[in-house]
Amino acid sequence: MNLLEEKILKYGKVLPGEILKVDNFLNHQVDMDTMYWIGEEFAKRFKDAGITKVLTLESSGIPPAVMTAYELQIPFVFAKKAKSANLGNAGVYTSKVRSYTYGNEYTITVSDQYLGKKDTVLIVDDFLATGEAVHGMLELCEKAGAKVAGIGICIEKGFQNGGKDLREKGYHLESLAVIDEMNDDGTLKFRNQGE
Amino acid sequence: MNLLEEKILKYGKVLPGEILKVDNFLNHQVDMDTMYWIGEEFAKRFKDAGITKVLTLESSGIPPAVMTAYELQIPFVFAKKAKSANLGNAGVYTSKVRSYTYGNEYTITVSDQYLGKKDTVLIVDDFLATGEAVHGMLELCEKAGAKVAGIGICIEKGFQNGGKDLREKGYHLESLAVIDEMNDDGTLKFRNQGE
Repeated sequence: MNLLEEKILKYGKVLPGEILKVDNFLNHQVDMDTMYWIGEEFAKRFKDAGITKVLTLESSGIPPAVMTAYELQIPFVFAKKAKSANLGNAGVYTSKVRSYTYGNEYTITVSDQYLGKKDTVLIVDDFLATGEAVHGMLELCEKAGAKVAGIGICIEKGFQNGGKDLREKGYHLESLAVIDEMNDDGTLKFRNQGE
Repeated sequence: MNLLEEKILKYGKVLPGEILKVDNFLNHQVDMDTMYWIGEEFAKRFKDAGITKVLTLESSGIPPAVMTAYELQIPFVFAKKAKSANLGNAGVYTSKVRSYTYGNEYTITVSDQYLGKKDTVLIVDDFLATGEAVHGMLELCEKAGAKVAGIGICIEKGFQNGGKDLREKGYHLESLAVIDEMNDDGTLKFRNQGE
């Protein structure tokens, strides 16, 4: 069992509706030991992929993106969920993302100044379930002409289709913890990834 | 001149309406050398204040909060701009913040699980202008009974009243760059803070 899986077992809470609450160490209060390990792990797994930029989506993707970019010694860019008045007249690439957590659809944007043909991108996010957010970021990269070298996810809900779809499409997806079962009695089961 | 001031001069853009655009290295694309320095600097300036937790506000406060918490080896918490469905039934502290950038008012929330009487807080944010966001976070701390040991700001617009007000109220405010003048010809002037 790796550090993230241990933290999930110790501090995570499985709620009815297949919700995993990890807001005491991952996406509201953030434990820096865990986050440092996550950054190190993504950097290690993608170190030979020629990554020039980490791309994530505000807000809870930002902490793992910061630590990954820090370890890889490259910049990161966070796509925004609403067009900022301060993005000015510069062009932006946009994509629509459906949120199952909030039950709505939103637009994500990234400035065309910070994502382009020269970039080899590592997409980083905290959760992967149906894969809507990752597909939104893939679309931003496609529009920008950037190469996607990989996708790093902290926690994948393996019983939903997002991860499976991305692997079948040939993406190099690394999920640090894959949960294959979440039960109403509060238990969960990790996929054995053979580490 | 410190590293952040150098980066502002080199990469920042002064736009009409006293807008400073720093989205190529600070709050959209993020340069990790700058961010590492910011974290180190806040950690150094507040190292003897007994800080137990860094508090920031999503989204652009998160990168400096991550690096500061990393340096201080403590957790950070980011207040959220909308009530998350996944915050569940746990109590939250809330505060209203007016945004001059977007011309609206929004509610910020933090779970009462992650901010409380035991905490000595360092508030971190990327920008300080009128101080609305900082006041919102101060209100969250007050409601939680947490002690505020200091406020760390990356860029203060010194020609607006936020910083002055906070210093007059006795807060230990450290702004890494204070801009006293922004001119329509694109020039700006830093306050000499005697470093």
